[in-house]
Amino acid sequence: MHEPTFKSVAVIGTGVIGRSWIRVFARAGCETRGFDPDDERLARAFEGTPPSARACATLDEALAGAEWVQESGPEALATKRSLYAELDATAPPTAILASSTSTHDMSRIAEGLDGASRCIVAHPVNPPHVVPVVEVLPGERTDPETVAAALAFMTSVGQSPVEMNHYLPGFLLNRMQAALVREAVFLIGSGAATADAIDTVIRDGLGLRWALMGPFGTAHTNADGGAGDYLERYGDAYRALWADLEADPDFDASVIEQVHDGMVDLYGPDSTAALSEWRDRSVRRIRDMKKEDPPPTRAEAAR
Amino acid sequence: MHEPTFKSVAVIGTGVIGRSWIRVFARAGCETRGFDPDDERLARAFEGTPPSARACATLDEALAGAEWVQESGPEALATKRSLYAELDATAPPTAILASSTSTHDMSRIAEGLDGASRCIVAHPVNPPHVVPVVEVLPGERTDPETVAAALAFMTSVGQSPVEMNHYLPGFLLNRMQAALVREAVFLIGSGAATADAIDTVIRDGLGLRWALMGPFGTAHTNADGGAGDYLERYGDAYRALWADLEADPDFDASVIEQVHDGMVDLYGPDSTAALSEWRDRSVRRIRDMKKEDPPPTRAEAAR
Repeated sequence: MHEPTFKSVAVIGTGVIGRSWIRVFARAGCETRGFDPDDERLARAFEGTPPSARACATLDEALAGAEWVQESGPEALATKRSLYAELDATAPPTAILASSTSTHDMSRIAEGLDGASRCIVAHPVNPPHVVPVVEVLPGERTDPETVAAALAFMTSVGQSPVEMNHYLPGFLLNRMQAALVREAVFLIGSGAATADAIDTVIRDGLGLRWALMGPFGTAHTNADGGAGDYLERYGDAYRALWADLEADPDFDASVIEQVHDGMVDLYGPDSTAALSEWRDRSVRRIRDMKKEDPPPTRAEAAR
Repeated sequence: MHEPTFKSVAVIGTGVIGRSWIRVFARAGCETRGFDPDDERLARAFEGTPPSARACATLDEALAGAEWVQESGPEALATKRSLYAELDATAPPTAILASSTSTHDMSRIAEGLDGASRCIVAHPVNPPHVVPVVEVLPGERTDPETVAAALAFMTSVGQSPVEMNHYLPGFLLNRMQAALVREAVFLIGSGAATADAIDTVIRDGLGLRWALMGPFGTAHTNADGGAGDYLERYGDAYRALWADLEADPDFDASVIEQVHDGMVDLYGPDSTAALSEWRDRSVRRIRDMKKEDPPPTRAEAAR
């Protein structure tokens, strides 16, 4: 891991996401302050954190000297807008104001703010201290320098930022997830397969490679001439399948029940702590494995 | 690994897929015979295989005594149909005739055959000796006992079979892959993100979890009441995104070039042996990791 490009960080809102961000920033060596109007939630978010992280009694105290503000408050747009007005008025004038929102356009959140140029979305996957990808996207008035600084900072604290050039509902990750889940819901609802069969196809098939390379990297290994060769060869096959996919599958109580029952058979009825711990531990191991044995680079491959 | 439920196996067609199947069956302890009309291809397929695997000079010799026939010939329907007529006439009457086809309906391949009840699709992911999932699906006349025997045999040789109840183009895996790739192509073509950003979102985000649990298992960890709770909470959000996804994205030479160039920057211009070896080695490690540290079962989670 690099030295963090910002040393002084404020996390505003310390629910599930804010709490995990505190771990990301603190382990990277940032001086990390947090604030939440709910005292109990605030205290809980700092359980077991290093001395470089501390809870603050007021928003002003948390923001004092901050170079990066990671807003992780409630997801309602009106709440975000009033919170951003307060952040823009209170944070140091050069601080970047980043939102963990998964749904809102920064153009709307920062509409009318003097400091709109320093406002940006930095949307993590839950929990960010385990899953590294962060979607970074500007609003209409966000300064390109804010984008560059956000990408550099996220990389420097060990995350994997990706740049999205403009807002679309669901950003990149949730759109692609929704596309795959839509077809999965259709396959279950139409009686083609069970939820367990669907999950097995992913976890013992597609997911094994996608954890390493994503779909286009995988394509690059599947034809002699690389991804371009693959996409030219299979382009018509893809188009034919696209025409056959279901756009609006039944997604009623009976499909949901089938999925739920399938997962209960596998894992038990609830999202247990033991299951989430296993998931997070295993994700960390895959990440460690990729760090220790990364893909051959262009230079190595040419040898 | 269990004892294989069939001991005597014939692999007919020894291209990339047949060659990999030979490794699956031989390492599971099956007596594995192979045949291919191309002598050179046949010889190459048996390089480095254990003594329990051997190349045969004729189709008859390969099929003699076989309990399971894994047909891995050319993908053209007419070729499959005439090959199946020959297999049905030549293989022992109780042998199961399984096809590696990724596209054809067994109802069409085995149309008019006396032995249609013993014909079934067993579609692997390439290469099956690395990626375990196998899609098992019957034709209209396939006997349910053939389905059950195919699932049991595939499990017994260490694969992860999933049952698909009826034919749909692309089966399960390629349909879900096509759904995700369609949206990825749209995101690139519309200028929302680069191919590398798309791949990063998958390999450092969605794919990390999907390698462990699939989308519904992941959902089961993302709400207190499990997958049902998650899908009820986020059902409307999914429906809203589904309505926003692109059904027919531009997929022209310029998009293909962007994807290809992005992958070349990461990995070099070709699908190199080094890159494929890294991919397969890393897939094996993830599989080993999941075997050594499997998810807590229902009983363990309840403790």
